[in-house]
Amino acid sequence: MYRTVTLTTDFGVRDPYVAAMKGVLLDICPNVRIVDLTHEIGPQNIAEGALFLAGAVPYFPKETIHVAVIDPGVGTERRPIVLRTLEQYIVCPDNGLAALLVRQSPWEARVISNSAFMRDTISPTFHGRDIFAPAAAHLASGAPFDQVGSPIESLVTLAWPEPTVDASGAIHGQVVHVDRFGNLITNIHHSMVREPASASVHLGAHALDGIQSTYGELPLGKPLTLFGSSGYLEIAVNSGSAAEAFAAAAGEHVTVTLTAS
Amino acid sequence: MYRTVTLTTDFGVRDPYVAAMKGVLLDICPNVRIVDLTHEIGPQNIAEGALFLAGAVPYFPKETIHVAVIDPGVGTERRPIVLRTLEQYIVCPDNGLAALLVRQSPWEARVISNSAFMRDTISPTFHGRDIFAPAAAHLASGAPFDQVGSPIESLVTLAWPEPTVDASGAIHGQVVHVDRFGNLITNIHHSMVREPASASVHLGAHALDGIQSTYGELPLGKPLTLFGSSGYLEIAVNSGSAAEAFAAAAGEHVTVTLTAS
Amino acid sequence: MYRTVTLTTDFGVRDPYVAAMKGVLLDICPNVRIVDLTHEIGPQNIAEGALFLAGAVPYFPKETIHVAVIDPGVGTERRPIVLRTLEQYIVCPDNGLAALLVRQSPWEARVISNSAFMRDTISPTFHGRDIFAPAAAHLASGAPFDQVGSPIESLVTLAWPEPTVDASGAIHGQVVHVDRFGNLITNIHHSMVREPASASVHLGAHALDGIQSTYGELPLGKPLTLFGSSGYLEIAVNSGSAAEAFAAAAGEHVTVTLTAS
Repeated sequence: MYRTVTLTTDFGVRDPYVAAMKGVLLDICPNVRIVDLTHEIGPQNIAEGALFLAGAVPYFPKETIHVAVIDPGVGTERRPIVLRTLEQYIVCPDNGLAALLVRQSPWEARVISNSAFMRDTISPTFHGRDIFAPAAAHLASGAPFDQVGSPIESLVTLAWPEPTVDASGAIHGQVVHVDRFGNLITNIHHSMVREPASASVHLGAHALDGIQSTYGELPLGKPLTLFGSSGYLEIAVNSGSAAEAFAAAAGEHVTVTLTAS
Repeated sequence: MYRTVTLTTDFGVRDPYVAAMKGVLLDICPNVRIVDLTHEIGPQNIAEGALFLAGAVPYFPKETIHVAVIDPGVGTERRPIVLRTLEQYIVCPDNGLAALLVRQSPWEARVISNSAFMRDTISPTFHGRDIFAPAAAHLASGAPFDQVGSPIESLVTLAWPEPTVDASGAIHGQVVHVDRFGNLITNIHHSMVREPASASVHLGAHALDGIQSTYGELPLGKPLTLFGSSGYLEIAVNSGSAAEAFAAAAGEHVTVTLTAS
Repeated sequence: MYRTVTLTTDFGVRDPYVAAMKGVLLDICPNVRIVDLTHEIGPQNIAEGALFLAGAVPYFPKETIHVAVIDPGVGTERRPIVLRTLEQYIVCPDNGLAALLVRQSPWEARVISNSAFMRDTISPTFHGRDIFAPAAAHLASGAPFDQVGSPIESLVTLAWPEPTVDASGAIHGQVVHVDRFGNLITNIHHSMVREPASASVHLGAHALDGIQSTYGELPLGKPLTLFGSSGYLEIAVNSGSAAEAFAAAAGEHVTVTLTAS
């Protein structure tokens, strides 16, 4: 049986860093199936990596092994870990990268301290190659999780903006991500909005229409709000870019109010 | 036996959309081999996607399954389909994306209407994850094509510029694509040019030399015209960019005239 | 048994060139495992490709087959070759692309002249699809190396800057690559610097501190020098970009002097 190891990094692919990790994976576990998720996370942007993992990992089958390396603290005291959640493994630095993934699901984690899960020589600047890829490859080869190292009880958290609800019931959130299409992804989950049909939305000072259910319901170029494929409120422009239309970026304030009915 | 599923999208890889599709593929069909073709098609650029597929699919072996998602009409009445041509499958929206591929070869197609080929819940904005990837994974797992849904008799077409021939025999075409090297790819196929050795080429008002057979035959920096690897006339600059040298883009007029001999 | 074929090109993935190569690989060798290393080498930048291969290939297991196509001379007299080194194969044009890889290790090479290792029709402009991918696929299918073509005794070399040591013992090198993080990678290998602890480094006219061992040892934003993960001296800025901080690019002079102790 072969096992799947996915890769999520901020390394880009113009440098040989990702290639070196793939070589190490194949060298240790000849039957591994390597699946690239992304290497285009913004350099050292842990929050962007955390949001990516939360949007990707839940779709994978049990026992998938994900290597995630956005690691500005490489070579310092930050711990390399293997996290088990959703019946899958995440092999990553303990720096908040898995923080959004573990908010909804039970998890356990171990620090990677057993040198049998590492390369013989550890560069102080490239643990992706020397610790994370080898640990994933050994897990993929059948090495047991409980031999990785000692269990840990808490993970480093991530400064993450949480939406608030005021006395009038209005929800105050913000844009947390702009996707390739210029869609503005917010931190307001559909579970917070009890009556979408009677809600109205503001992006900063811009009043938007009510919440629709798909991009195609409005004329081309018209802005719309909808709950996106991950369940969060998005502001889009049909066949256009909301980021351009509103000159908006991550951090922009978004308010949902319930219209008196 | 495992099966190959390729992916062609306009999603980029900085967002988790492609990763979610890969997770769904692996979840439904554990033995699938996933091959990325591209995720860098211009956002919502159906014509660019169609040209890409026409340049890629013919090289793949029988029974390959290609998922192609450039889908500005997601959530509207446009149909999700499985197309069979060249003894391969294309799983895509019926929006012109397969139009260049089917111009030369017999095909049959079915609308994806059988819910057994979809995820349980269908987001109105992400059919790549909820319809196209699952349909491909079920085909890869051995589900029969004729259970996908009802056959359809015609496909949505693509507005595509066709070259014309005037009374003097001159061929009037245009640049349809600029590649990474700045080569200008036209819509003039070598089968239209009976005597390449005696042809002369104009790009807009620029007179170019006759048609050569390779980049290396001329001095560095010299422009040249040749039939490219897909059989279409290209305008190139040896070790340089024709797009920069001529400030040319897609849409630029190209004329081939036969010199009196 | 299946075999791994990796791909390193300057093709990007927006055009269908890489996809066509993957189709050819799968068509000839149905069991091949395709691993993308990069398609983002600068267009026609042989030196960048050579540096990439030298940083990637050594990590792969025996019998891996690497296809590398940065090929400005396609269609001219430059030879297509299969190189064997580090118990692996490199299938590439003989234009200096493998020059850094073979500097440290024994090698043998053969020109690809046996048409059984090529496609039936050879485009003069796309040997990646018509010669290099097919040759790799046939090797992956078990065709023997010694049937590729005749052995060759020398390879095309690469103009590559070598560091020099002056009468005072100072090492004069240069920046040869800037990575995604803005780290400045030099051509000064750690084996040249006998006493790193007492060395001082200049980047152009900028005096830098001594050589550290990891990024995390200094305050954020502070420049530092260290031996990177490939063993070469790097100039970095902790959680920042040295390329931006020093407005430095490839070619910048770097000097290492030993402080009197």
